[in-house]
Amino acid sequence: MTETTGVTLARGFAASGVTAGLKPSGRPDVAVVQNLGPRMAAAAVFTTNRVFAAPVKWSRQAVADGQVQAVVLNSGGANACTGAAGFADSAATASRVAAELGLITDNVAVCSTGLIGLRLPMDRLLPGVAEACARLSPDGGSAAAQAIMTTDTVPKQAGVTRGGWSVGGMAKGAGMLAPGLATMLVVVTTDADLDAATLDRCLREATRVTFDRADSDGCMSTNDTVLLMASGASGVAPDEQEFAAALTEVCADLARQLIADAEGAAHEIAIEVVGAADERDAETVGREIARSNLFKCAIFGGDPNWGRVLAAIGVTDAAFDPDDLDVSFNGVMVCRGGQIGDDRALVDLRHRDVHVRVDLHAGDASATILTNDLTYDYVKENAEYST
Amino acid sequence: MTETTGVTLARGFAASGVTAGLKPSGRPDVAVVQNLGPRMAAAAVFTTNRVFAAPVKWSRQAVADGQVQAVVLNSGGANACTGAAGFADSAATASRVAAELGLITDNVAVCSTGLIGLRLPMDRLLPGVAEACARLSPDGGSAAAQAIMTTDTVPKQAGVTRGGWSVGGMAKGAGMLAPGLATMLVVVTTDADLDAATLDRCLREATRVTFDRADSDGCMSTNDTVLLMASGASGVAPDEQEFAAALTEVCADLARQLIADAEGAAHEIAIEVVGAADERDAETVGREIARSNLFKCAIFGGDPNWGRVLAAIGVTDAAFDPDDLDVSFNGVMVCRGGQIGDDRALVDLRHRDVHVRVDLHAGDASATILTNDLTYDYVKENAEYST
Repeated sequence: MTETTGVTLARGFAASGVTAGLKPSGRPDVAVVQNLGPRMAAAAVFTTNRVFAAPVKWSRQAVADGQVQAVVLNSGGANACTGAAGFADSAATASRVAAELGLITDNVAVCSTGLIGLRLPMDRLLPGVAEACARLSPDGGSAAAQAIMTTDTVPKQAGVTRGGWSVGGMAKGAGMLAPGLATMLVVVTTDADLDAATLDRCLREATRVTFDRADSDGCMSTNDTVLLMASGASGVAPDEQEFAAALTEVCADLARQLIADAEGAAHEIAIEVVGAADERDAETVGREIARSNLFKCAIFGGDPNWGRVLAAIGVTDAAFDPDDLDVSFNGVMVCRGGQIGDDRALVDLRHRDVHVRVDLHAGDASATILTNDLTYDYVKENAEYST
Repeated sequence: MTETTGVTLARGFAASGVTAGLKPSGRPDVAVVQNLGPRMAAAAVFTTNRVFAAPVKWSRQAVADGQVQAVVLNSGGANACTGAAGFADSAATASRVAAELGLITDNVAVCSTGLIGLRLPMDRLLPGVAEACARLSPDGGSAAAQAIMTTDTVPKQAGVTRGGWSVGGMAKGAGMLAPGLATMLVVVTTDADLDAATLDRCLREATRVTFDRADSDGCMSTNDTVLLMASGASGVAPDEQEFAAALTEVCADLARQLIADAEGAAHEIAIEVVGAADERDAETVGREIARSNLFKCAIFGGDPNWGRVLAAIGVTDAAFDPDDLDVSFNGVMVCRGGQIGDDRALVDLRHRDVHVRVDLHAGDASATILTNDLTYDYVKENAEYST
């Protein structure tokens, strides 16, 4: 184990990141992560957007048999809305990796992020892919995490180690699986010895309570991908619950990093909904609040505006009585029983972290949704720059 | 007929607007519109938000029997999330109007708009109500339209005259029925001789294709109300279709004025969805695009970003094939068949009016959703000022 975090924390993986010249900035833009085995097990979840990019179509097929030997990722172009030619470009990219590394093309996943509607410059991408393959290293995780950045200001890596095995990962994007602000790409690796079906169950559960509950701006990308690969190199086959917990911890860490680095955000907001009749209700209420532009502007303005929170709750079909709703901002219950509560002047919203707690008083279920405020800089980034 | 537009265009109505001192600005804040008959027929539609304000609860009851003799409206306080005491305030307001004008309290509708979570200053409101009743005039429509303004920069009135009868109305707010940016209050009057059931059918159809399709920022208010009153003073009973068409024309005019005056907006955007399998699909797709912050920022930035339009369409359940989608901005088809189309440099987004046309190529139905862009000023207004 040569790294303390990221995709090369777990044994049996090599990674790299290089500059192919896809981005005007001249920053690294192509990464490869290879599973060296002995296992080649994999699972993945993808955007549920019906307009999905060519690499998503390719990777869905690649991972369908539960076997992935490597993944190649590029920033500087999403290869979305590019038709049959774009799909051929994804296939050619996988094929190049397979040729360089002696793998099967159908076992190479592909992820892309960047502008929609433009073909990738294959004359630059393919040599970059070859170079990335040549530079694969058991301590290349950080280089890979750098190469997948787009509007990210920092690379995002996470990792945990348990009894003899580890889970590590990297992420890019300031958004989420469903929906996503900018494309979210995540690669998680483990040297635990688990089969593809187990990985699939654990990954769906982990993403459901982490990435799926990070909702920066309500917009879902065409390219979102979370790929999990297991090498089995530890020789340890952990209990499924134990593995799922470790995987969820890594995913939660990466989700927090994504929200913390969301485009133009001034606050990271955790919306905790308790007292819900069921988890779906809690999630629905949290998500509706997270999508209220009025609420998000209020947080930017330092205003604990519980009226906007109630107005958002009111459009959901969750079980609640409007006269029972409690809303707290950073521990101050400014709305109690659907009416004015403690003095809002007691609420301090100057720090980046904001905790909004809603009690529906309708049951025992809860969920926390992570989101951001709506700022001048969000408008600026998304008005001035194309995605 | 003393007016050419507004709530006193139709015969059989008197209106007024006065300053009760509810607003720090000292601007007019209480309006009354009285139906002088001979008919007292009425219909109304209200916010579908489950957290609805006291005046909405009151007015639902008042209009339930199809009879409304007067409506009293105040800005400077929403009387929402104020519990039983707030409901009593609405009742007292209606009661004061009834006492001043010799009406039945249950036949007086009440509308409020302003801050959520605060009690109305009844010591100022009730004398203002009395003064408004004393000043009722057959040419008071413009004064009433002034008195219901909050963040509106201009009063909003509309009217049409047909063979011997008229429909006129006033509106405040920069939003819509469901959902609404800020509370939308609309009062429409007619001297057509129609019963409450006919008014109800016509109003539901008119609002469905006008206010319900104006979606400035996806947030639904606790107070939205559209009230229609008929005096029968013309003695003319128009054909229902003819009346519905005139009513829809007035509502469409007011809806356009609301979007044109939306908080902080720099562009008014008409999203026309054609080729839909049914009207619901067309509306769903238009609304999803209208709610995409990324799309709305792009318009602010003058960027005909069809990728963001496709990403929004892709999260709906509407019938379409991603490879068939056409998207035009101001007549330039920048996306054809789900891929890059004509040169986006041909699109000019410098003017306030923007027309986005989406062809789903899945049928013959269509719908147009009106919305705004997302701007620095929107963030500023909603970050710095409470609602």
